[in-house]
Amino acid sequence: MGMTIVEKILAKKSGKDEVKPGENIWVNVDVLMTHDVTGPGSMAIFKKNFGENAKVWNNEKIVLVPDHYIFTKNEHAMRNIEYVNQFAVEQELKYFYPPFTNKYKGVCHTALAQEGHTRPGEVLFGTDSHTCTAGAFGEFATGIGNTDAAFILGTGKLWVKVPETMRFTFEGKFPEYVMGKDVVLKVIGDIGFDGATYKCMQFDGDAIHGFNMEERMTICNMAIEAGGKCGIIEPDEITVEYVTEKTDKPFELIYSDKDADYSAEYKYNANEMEPIVAKPFNPGNTDLAKNLGDVKLDRAYIGSCTGGKTTDFVAAAKILKGRKVAIETFIVPSTVKVEEALSKIIIDGETCMEIFEKAGCKIGPPSCAACLGGPVDTFGRTHANEVVISTTNRNFPGRMGSMDSQVYLASPYTAAASAVTGHITDPREFLGWEK
Amino acid sequence: MGMTIVEKILAKKSGKDEVKPGENIWVNVDVLMTHDVTGPGSMAIFKKNFGENAKVWNNEKIVLVPDHYIFTKNEHAMRNIEYVNQFAVEQELKYFYPPFTNKYKGVCHTALAQEGHTRPGEVLFGTDSHTCTAGAFGEFATGIGNTDAAFILGTGKLWVKVPETMRFTFEGKFPEYVMGKDVVLKVIGDIGFDGATYKCMQFDGDAIHGFNMEERMTICNMAIEAGGKCGIIEPDEITVEYVTEKTDKPFELIYSDKDADYSAEYKYNANEMEPIVAKPFNPGNTDLAKNLGDVKLDRAYIGSCTGGKTTDFVAAAKILKGRKVAIETFIVPSTVKVEEALSKIIIDGETCMEIFEKAGCKIGPPSCAACLGGPVDTFGRTHANEVVISTTNRNFPGRMGSMDSQVYLASPYTAAASAVTGHITDPREFLGWEK
Repeated sequence: MGMTIVEKILAKKSGKDEVKPGENIWVNVDVLMTHDVTGPGSMAIFKKNFGENAKVWNNEKIVLVPDHYIFTKNEHAMRNIEYVNQFAVEQELKYFYPPFTNKYKGVCHTALAQEGHTRPGEVLFGTDSHTCTAGAFGEFATGIGNTDAAFILGTGKLWVKVPETMRFTFEGKFPEYVMGKDVVLKVIGDIGFDGATYKCMQFDGDAIHGFNMEERMTICNMAIEAGGKCGIIEPDEITVEYVTEKTDKPFELIYSDKDADYSAEYKYNANEMEPIVAKPFNPGNTDLAKNLGDVKLDRAYIGSCTGGKTTDFVAAAKILKGRKVAIETFIVPSTVKVEEALSKIIIDGETCMEIFEKAGCKIGPPSCAACLGGPVDTFGRTHANEVVISTTNRNFPGRMGSMDSQVYLASPYTAAASAVTGHITDPREFLGWEK
Repeated sequence: MGMTIVEKILAKKSGKDEVKPGENIWVNVDVLMTHDVTGPGSMAIFKKNFGENAKVWNNEKIVLVPDHYIFTKNEHAMRNIEYVNQFAVEQELKYFYPPFTNKYKGVCHTALAQEGHTRPGEVLFGTDSHTCTAGAFGEFATGIGNTDAAFILGTGKLWVKVPETMRFTFEGKFPEYVMGKDVVLKVIGDIGFDGATYKCMQFDGDAIHGFNMEERMTICNMAIEAGGKCGIIEPDEITVEYVTEKTDKPFELIYSDKDADYSAEYKYNANEMEPIVAKPFNPGNTDLAKNLGDVKLDRAYIGSCTGGKTTDFVAAAKILKGRKVAIETFIVPSTVKVEEALSKIIIDGETCMEIFEKAGCKIGPPSCAACLGGPVDTFGRTHANEVVISTTNRNFPGRMGSMDSQVYLASPYTAAASAVTGHITDPREFLGWEK
């Protein structure tokens, strides 16, 4: 019996010829990512256990991206940033992207990819549940807690149970109006928010491989929303093209064996996919966008690692071009590079940024912003009773600030179309697409 | 009646609302590319007409990439390089990539893309017939003669007849063993080496948009082999992802109108495509690879702007992994970045470069090398009576050196498979693909 891509990566990184799902192994870590919210805890546990003056196992394999609570006056948030800053300096971390400097990059999951830290065949852990985003590059990537991260800081290893792999195959071609967000919401809706608990979710098929890397990242990002240990997509020539010039490090292209064993197989016809929305209060509570036209909205939010990448905004800009938003609409680029891109990419004579400004959007600085609520002065934070359509990845009660707001999750196309009408809107009503 | 993407670009760059095929217009040039072979002529004509001390119209819009006859002791070639070097210094050209320095990039058409000089919506002229490569980025790009280039050097403008557009649509999905080279050889074989004379060749359809940028470049590169004025592919999210981080300049996403007028429409089923080879002595003289098994080969050549990009070599490496070549086989990365990539990308425990070395290939420095023959000491130059399979773009008599050699053009898959067997070989015989 062959192995899946994730089994092969874990075998290689544990020095074994073969691993099986359920087996516990010591894995050598290629990259540990941490940020301002979870970093202090990890670092404090590291110091407590390895010693106040201990050195991390490898200061070139830790990527520190403060990104969550940055643009705020909240003193706890500022203290966290000060704490991780100090740790980075003490430990001489090579890949530290400090806020409030021209080294600042933005949201960790997008920044990791843009700065060349996501590489096929590697093992990446991060103290953030959406670390699974990097599975888009054909690597094993998953979120861990502070204790595990502290252990990695000291040893470069982690004790991991090899996950079973579920495969989701999308044959055919997605219609133009279907984005990565729709694809992953479809899967989560089908299997439920606990449908992949501790499983690897491998996304496969011609339609998935027709997506660019940013769309693939959106899909893998939300594996955790079905409880998945990780999401993964085998590398192809689009992966190679994206990664090669971003890193000086070698990386290995690894593929599932043809006779690999999957714990479940789901097959979809990509051509039949439609825009999907997740209703409050979990990402598995899905419906077709076209069925939700009665939902009146107070605001739209387009941003985050799941919906704030360059091509997410190109999609939104195509809808908002020459139109006005009917509701308060927030635009939050996930990184500084994305923000720069919005002033470069021109659609019918206007940059994306100009389109957003003319449409009446509010544009915030690159960070996690209101994706996860944050301090009271966080850009885009929800208030009581607000109904929001958002390109982010979670809609649990209180996730975007107020416990009394309701968040609907959708693609940038759907969020932008809904921003124009003020109610949930299937984007096929725009741009001449058939519904 | 709407306009095609090329008509819309030319209208915009000539300050008109509308242009029609056959119309002559003054076009404002965004980029002029030149190299060591044609550069001296262009520069000399410029000086003769605009004055010995004249300054070029814009020293930030000229890209000078000496790449053709670099690694040679030929004194004429060295004199050319000295001449263009001197011009670049005199004119303070911002984008000059001198050979024999760490600024050297490699073959102009690949380097233009990798260094961010190919941008959607622009007009790019180059004193090289394969300048049409850049059409892959959704721009108007074409080769010109030295007199036209001299005029652009002085004025930044050119008098252009708007071409008609032929559209070639590939619906479905290409099998894994079909590459961009097979696609364009199929088209040239169908319409003949003069089948698109002074036409724009627009490549379209889901299958084309499933390719990465390098594959798209291969397709547009060979538009000229059917006599095309240019090749073009509309930009999509893969284009945006590739271009955005490579340039600081704004660029416009332009698409053909739905009611645009095409002078001819060809439709293909991508799923049915098979590996194709162009026999001597023109790229339109095609047959299926599987029909040419009787052709015994003396050497294989994998390189050039058409077959020497990173993912071209990944394809070749997949075939050559764990095998030995039966004939002399040359590997020539098109650029320094591609060369670096070959030492980064690992397949089953070995880098591509290691795979090539173990297979017994000869590896040359990044340049045009024997693609167009060159001086007698050029790496890979053909000798009399040799029969060669090559990933390059032309097989006219003498093109790769000797007038008495025969060159068969093929994809990197087909060239690598043939290198292993010593005769022309359908790559489906390898890697477990069905034939």
